[in-house]
Amino acid sequence: MTSPFPHHYEVSLELVAPTSAEGSLATANGPPLVVGPPPQFDGGPGHQSPEDLLLGAIAGCHMTTFVALARRRGLAVRRYRAVATGTLEKTREGLRFTAFRLRVEGATEPGKEAEMRRLLEVAEGYCLVSAALRPEVALEVVVHTEP
Amino acid sequence: MTSPFPHHYEVSLELVAPTSAEGSLATANGPPLVVGPPPQFDGGPGHQSPEDLLLGAIAGCHMTTFVALARRRGLAVRRYRAVATGTLEKTREGLRFTAFRLRVEGATEPGKEAEMRRLLEVAEGYCLVSAALRPEVALEVVVHTEP
Repeated sequence: MTSPFPHHYEVSLELVAPTSAEGSLATANGPPLVVGPPPQFDGGPGHQSPEDLLLGAIAGCHMTTFVALARRRGLAVRRYRAVATGTLEKTREGLRFTAFRLRVEGATEPGKEAEMRRLLEVAEGYCLVSAALRPEVALEVVVHTEP
Repeated sequence: MTSPFPHHYEVSLELVAPTSAEGSLATANGPPLVVGPPPQFDGGPGHQSPEDLLLGAIAGCHMTTFVALARRRGLAVRRYRAVATGTLEKTREGLRFTAFRLRVEGATEPGKEAEMRRLLEVAEGYCLVSAALRPEVALEVVVHTEP
């Protein structure tokens, strides 16, 4: 059952390698992550970047929301794949994300394509992460069938 | 050197365990992550939640931005620890994050406390992730000295 609201989420991050700007991120639930700058900002390999964590939050929020909706409706989910992208540009206000895009490819049983497409779209409307972001996340959906 | 703008970031996520709503997240730079719902939404243990990834992005963006500024100014960073929290509440628009908070504890060499405090605040203003979020991220800063 969903815990009563409000929910409180918390993570902690400690700088462990000042030279490479890498830190250790402790989350409530998963294993610790190494976080540092992306290659676009001179980061080395082998760690997660804040930019990728943000895109992972967008995709993860959509996936978990959709799976919960599909379960409630008894929709068979044969496949769910998502690609989240973000564009970072120089604007008059400084460097800003100017676009977020989420392309989802799903598969369900024959005859259920329209329902899966609809639930994928409804899930985006419920997504807590997308709701906290500007610009809006643009969703593209493709649904196949698999017997 | 920073890559020319615009920057394009991309991650992909594939549902691998429909029952537990867990997926495998592939990022550009780091190892793959298992992503699924947080305990507050009935999630099991051992994976990252979208909520925690979002908070990790907030903290990571601040840390990497601050380290870059400190390096440019030649400021000694003896310690950087951050705790990021998010509050999720029922609102008239539905479930929404109503507060993001970032508490940073830093340490530098004696005499440099004011400069470190200032750079920690400037870093928040430059943070790409915070700039994409509403509500605003509230920053609290404590700076110590270590010889």
